Amino acid sequence: MRDKRSLRWISEQYFEQNGSHYQILLTPPTPLEFSRLVHISRPVLIKGLQVVESLTRLWTNDYLVERMGERPISVAVTPNGRADTVTSHDGTDYFVEPSVEQMTMSELLVSLSTGSSQNGNVYRSRPASQEGDSLSEFNSLKRDIPEEISWCSEALGQPPDAVNLWIGDSRSVTSIHNDPYENVYCVIRGKKIFTLFPPSEGWLLEEREYPHAAYTRPSPSANLKISPSGQTVRWSSMPEPDVHPPRGTHPIQIEVEAGDTLYLPAGWWHHVRQSGPTVIALNWWYDMEMSGMSWVMLSFLRGMHLEENGDAKDDSL
Amino acid sequence: MRDKRSLRWISEQYFEQNGSHYQILLTPPTPLEFSRLVHISRPVLIKGLQVVESLTRLWTNDYLVERMGERPISVAVTPNGRADTVTSHDGTDYFVEPSVEQMTMSELLVSLSTGSSQNGNVYRSRPASQEGDSLSEFNSLKRDIPEEISWCSEALGQPPDAVNLWIGDSRSVTSIHNDPYENVYCVIRGKKIFTLFPPSEGWLLEEREYPHAAYTRPSPSANLKISPSGQTVRWSSMPEPDVHPPRGTHPIQIEVEAGDTLYLPAGWWHHVRQSGPTVIALNWWYDMEMSGMSWVMLSFLRGMHLEENGDAKDDSL
Repeated sequence: MRDKRSLRWISEQYFEQNGSHYQILLTPPTPLEFSRLVHISRPVLIKGLQVVESLTRLWTNDYLVERMGERPISVAVTPNGRADTVTSHDGTDYFVEPSVEQMTMSELLVSLSTGSSQNGNVYRSRPASQEGDSLSEFNSLKRDIPEEISWCSEALGQPPDAVNLWIGDSRSVTSIHNDPYENVYCVIRGKKIFTLFPPSEGWLLEEREYPHAAYTRPSPSANLKISPSGQTVRWSSMPEPDVHPPRGTHPIQIEVEAGDTLYLPAGWWHHVRQSGPTVIALNWWYDMEMSGMSWVMLSFLRGMHLEENGDAKDDSL
Repeated sequence: MRDKRSLRWISEQYFEQNGSHYQILLTPPTPLEFSRLVHISRPVLIKGLQVVESLTRLWTNDYLVERMGERPISVAVTPNGRADTVTSHDGTDYFVEPSVEQMTMSELLVSLSTGSSQNGNVYRSRPASQEGDSLSEFNSLKRDIPEEISWCSEALGQPPDAVNLWIGDSRSVTSIHNDPYENVYCVIRGKKIFTLFPPSEGWLLEEREYPHAAYTRPSPSANLKISPSGQTVRWSSMPEPDVHPPRGTHPIQIEVEAGDTLYLPAGWWHHVRQSGPTVIALNWWYDMEMSGMSWVMLSFLRGMHLEENGDAKDDSL
């Protein structure tokens, strides 16, 4: 416990200084305003982003199916909607990645709207990152999706590192984690319920090394099974921090409705539930600033200095 | 030592990530560029600030004397040029503030240029802060001094908290300390040699509580004497960190020549020597951002969490 005295002091002081407040903007910030928000590094709910509001109207199921046609897209499939999460298997807790399977947009939307049919699988579209493969899958939606959020690119002086499209339903749950990205997260359809913890409370989320596995499907008609990979992943051991927040944490819950945008600062821990038969979101990931103190602090607040054998330099958030 | 494990880890990681590099700009930044620099929070040497370059030419001794006339100004006087520093007295180490005495600009400049005459006193003009009194002292120079640095005010979204005028000579030494201000520091005449330590190395500068005292002059012709006040001040116990940097620190030395401007980020430790018979500088102090993590980290990195009885909330940097 003596080792955690510093972490406790910081998390208490941070809460005392900042509370659970988050700002709501009724119009998008200017680049300079956003640069100040990045420096403060607190979540901000942003309304009135024109592109998001347009897409909430444009992206009907019919439109998406027509645009995408028969082109197969890579979909993350799990038996229970919980991708990238810790799951028990043969008496051991594994960090389990989803299976990636090909289907058409029409198949994806139908399987979402028919609930637990299709073996109860729940699907999530793979990130349409800037790498050739995933991007090209969504080529026919690209004209609708801006390559960047101008006030964010200008503020940070760089284009986004990745643009991700997310399609799922209310069974999908994103387990608690953080990313080394400044994240501009827009909900197009449905609602996302973010439960956020500041980086200062990361040590209370008790990350551990878990053996890594992935869902695989031995044959097209077989059920998904868990296949260990032999690798390990550092992940939080808190399954439901939204319902049972660890003692000493101060979660901030933000409901992001269709048309709304959340600025989720780099390093903030987030657990995400969805609401709605079909939930669609787009997000822009920007590399965080690596000069200065931010990266060092994020590593410290995860308790990297407490690792016995770990080499913090090799660590990726 | 166990308590300092976190501080050591952070200072080592910070150095590994950032080195001793500082940026040099040949022209002033835009507000947005400066906002990014504030987020990174590393020192930057800025050239080409027009107002500074103009003042290097405009502010001759003759001009200053003529402008200021017989108006008395408040001058910080010490026997040795070392104001706000730890000094031994009657076998005890005191933090000693200078005596504040009234003289004309002409008297101040003459006493600087004649070296150790006048009882070897060295003078430093008091901050021309925004409070009525000190500002009005320099009213006749106000037309030359911009109320704000536009790119800094715009970046931070606020006017400066104070504008300070500094006049001294090569005997003046500013002992190591830090301030909770974003500092835009312009040298008008002579040269300033800054020895800087990042906030992450503050704990190695070994702050302690010292009894507080001030130089006083019992009568106009008497010598200065040290008068304890009964209060205490937390101050670094490192008298010459520029010559003898503490083990584990990585000082950055920056020579700021006449016409140059230093961006000294909030919380950076600085020890300052001067070079030249008369050294003149102007600086703009802006309140640092108190939301988010910055303030908490500055307190932590000073080792406030190690205080046995201290109440960190009452602490002012």
